[in-house]
Amino acid sequence: MARNTTVKADHNAPGITEMLAKFIVEHPSRGWDDQVEREAHRTFANWLGCAIGPSQHETVQAAVAAIAEFEPAPQASLIGRKEKVDMANAALINGISSHTFDFDDTHLKTIIHPAGPVASAILALAERIGSSGREMLDALVIGIEVSCRVGNAVYPNHYDRGWHITGSTGMLGSAAACARLLKLDAARTQMALGIAASQPVGLREQFGTMTKPFHPGAAAKAGMTAALMAKHGFTASKRALEAPRGLLQVFSDKTDWSEVTENLGKTWEIALNTYKPFACGIVIHPSIDGCVQLRDKYDLKPADIAKVTIKVHSLVLELTGKKTPADGLQGKFSVYHSCAAGIIFGRAGEHEYADEIVTRDDVVALRSRVEAVVDDSIDEASADVTIDTVDGRKLHVFVEHAIGSVEHPMSDEQLKAKFVDQSTPIIGAAKSEQAWSLAMRLASLPNATELVAAATA
Amino acid sequence: MARNTTVKADHNAPGITEMLAKFIVEHPSRGWDDQVEREAHRTFANWLGCAIGPSQHETVQAAVAAIAEFEPAPQASLIGRKEKVDMANAALINGISSHTFDFDDTHLKTIIHPAGPVASAILALAERIGSSGREMLDALVIGIEVSCRVGNAVYPNHYDRGWHITGSTGMLGSAAACARLLKLDAARTQMALGIAASQPVGLREQFGTMTKPFHPGAAAKAGMTAALMAKHGFTASKRALEAPRGLLQVFSDKTDWSEVTENLGKTWEIALNTYKPFACGIVIHPSIDGCVQLRDKYDLKPADIAKVTIKVHSLVLELTGKKTPADGLQGKFSVYHSCAAGIIFGRAGEHEYADEIVTRDDVVALRSRVEAVVDDSIDEASADVTIDTVDGRKLHVFVEHAIGSVEHPMSDEQLKAKFVDQSTPIIGAAKSEQAWSLAMRLASLPNATELVAAATA
Repeated sequence: MARNTTVKADHNAPGITEMLAKFIVEHPSRGWDDQVEREAHRTFANWLGCAIGPSQHETVQAAVAAIAEFEPAPQASLIGRKEKVDMANAALINGISSHTFDFDDTHLKTIIHPAGPVASAILALAERIGSSGREMLDALVIGIEVSCRVGNAVYPNHYDRGWHITGSTGMLGSAAACARLLKLDAARTQMALGIAASQPVGLREQFGTMTKPFHPGAAAKAGMTAALMAKHGFTASKRALEAPRGLLQVFSDKTDWSEVTENLGKTWEIALNTYKPFACGIVIHPSIDGCVQLRDKYDLKPADIAKVTIKVHSLVLELTGKKTPADGLQGKFSVYHSCAAGIIFGRAGEHEYADEIVTRDDVVALRSRVEAVVDDSIDEASADVTIDTVDGRKLHVFVEHAIGSVEHPMSDEQLKAKFVDQSTPIIGAAKSEQAWSLAMRLASLPNATELVAAATA
Repeated sequence: MARNTTVKADHNAPGITEMLAKFIVEHPSRGWDDQVEREAHRTFANWLGCAIGPSQHETVQAAVAAIAEFEPAPQASLIGRKEKVDMANAALINGISSHTFDFDDTHLKTIIHPAGPVASAILALAERIGSSGREMLDALVIGIEVSCRVGNAVYPNHYDRGWHITGSTGMLGSAAACARLLKLDAARTQMALGIAASQPVGLREQFGTMTKPFHPGAAAKAGMTAALMAKHGFTASKRALEAPRGLLQVFSDKTDWSEVTENLGKTWEIALNTYKPFACGIVIHPSIDGCVQLRDKYDLKPADIAKVTIKVHSLVLELTGKKTPADGLQGKFSVYHSCAAGIIFGRAGEHEYADEIVTRDDVVALRSRVEAVVDDSIDEASADVTIDTVDGRKLHVFVEHAIGSVEHPMSDEQLKAKFVDQSTPIIGAAKSEQAWSLAMRLASLPNATELVAAATA
């Protein structure tokens, strides 16, 4: 068995596990400015709509059927549905649902979808223990701060290795949020982070399968369970995040501790959160945006188009380069289908990723005329789109920042339209309107009761 | 955001996810020789005793209290206790219990403790669905084959990186065993492995805390949940293990696919399983064995001893180099305390790692006279022990293979003595005798009922 141990180790990492635990416990309620407070509400409301939309999808149905095997106690509600299950599995299912349409929020610095693991845990736990809306919103801001700062410290190497960073940092965000809601002291909160650190969830290889949305759900459940174990005295390493054999050094070659330590409690990652106007991977959005812009500007019909050429960063094709998607889920990982949908429909919502749309003859025909060219001088957040028309015109647009980006955010009205579009078919127009309104004033609610009633069937 | 993607990827890996799924489903019941069948029974019986022993320990108490927050349905029994909880959490708790005293089995090629994640899932699921003893034993052999072969493929790099390989391969063993018990077809079994692949559990940084035994428990729970989700049609990547962004390439720089593909279904990793005579990390065992041998041969008392010098591989001190352990749990990670205990008591069972023993004056005094010297020419499985006596003698023994190793295995009688020693204080002498006897003829039992009755309070 003897051999050399050659893995590098940084023995001088700062005590970020302890530092984060103190921050989680001690940072004052609403200890941030109005812009952060507003973005936190938008984050929560967007997450809720994204969880309602797919609540009857086969992905969620399969997960609910599996969890029913455990005969769970009716502790917390499944969003968009009638059932209640135990709070850990409610976090799991709601987390799955919220990422099923790939339509949720994105922290663009890390490609983390921050709300899924954190908000799913918060709503389920808050419903069970009666937390106030203020406490829920505080936990959301703080939980997302923890997962995104850890993400910043290890991105991009960690992601490049193949981890789905949403789930592999999300369990820390969930543990942080649940520890805050449970009012654990700093020592137990440190243990909660430690227990969660042993449970990173998610591989990029799962993209295009149901296990991708499983990741934020499983992270939510793992973090909540970790916090509850810590509450009852379960112990973990005090340096579970930063030690040479701790999480960050184990799962990433890059560990920039300053991303965690600098300005903690002063700057807020949730302020950088963005929401998707299109129901697919964020890296396709600039390309779709460009296609929709040209379509609208020149009133293009599919028959007008000889060729669509998109120049994009190599990551775009690495993530979403499926040439011939066979169904809706694969369509979300196809920049080709997405551009075709943008041109034909002028949008790329969930409907444009239905199986029957992805395989429809006219869509397939236009898709085959979309060509992608790798150009690593173009940022991942940008796209260069050229459409050659059959009558010989060359139409061009360079999209530096797509709609939905930090630089070009969706308005509250656009966000509401997205919410209503997703939730109305599930819970009806009246409850949809009510759920939006309650979510956008979460911090003022006495507890989760009214919100949960509006957001369930 | 643009940057280079520099992580290496092997795009030509064989389809081990599919291959393992077929093996799990198609390998015939009792498709192995008598030696494998015998070792499987010893593995199960040893695991059961190790789960009974710590069932009242504060680690298990804390976990049970946390799980009670979910108000679980009484589906499956907690070993050594009175409660029933849902089968997933029964797998969690029993898995935690079985590793709490660090006294369970070891696959020495990988330092995997193979039974914990697999047997914990099997017993809980079998109790719930009424599997036969034969089915349980088949699932045990096959589940352990899967986790240990994956371990072989990535060890030692994966372990050196800091993963606690028991939990980070154990969820695959659990998923395999549960898929077999649930009689899933090969396609769904492949999905079960895929869903499990997104949930590796465990960091070596947690050694010395309650989260170490959490790892096999959480792996058991994750694997069972994965199998149940696959049963209900949840999907994952078909190449979740071997793809460039699949589990093995993500969490290890070494990926020797032949360790999975060669002689699959012909050779058996469970035949290499070993059981601990001492209640601590396996790498200390040769040192303790040497100390006990010299003690017995020369009838040594602590007062006779001027100095104990152990020469060992560097890994021994890396894992168990705690000079001044403050309590029982830390004592298990101290080769110094362990050698002192071996000399004073002639054994190193759970009692010798009690808090009051680790801090007792005479034990601390002798411990301070133990010196460890790194010599990487000595195998990890060996130790060179020299005792200088106060009267000037130099007593020496070289332990090539410690008692409990593959080369020097514990007899059935020794295993039974270990079982009875652990279980009698918990369930009494009569049930202890009965539980041992039932476990050692598991394959002939109609179901788990009688065994569970004997092994619970």
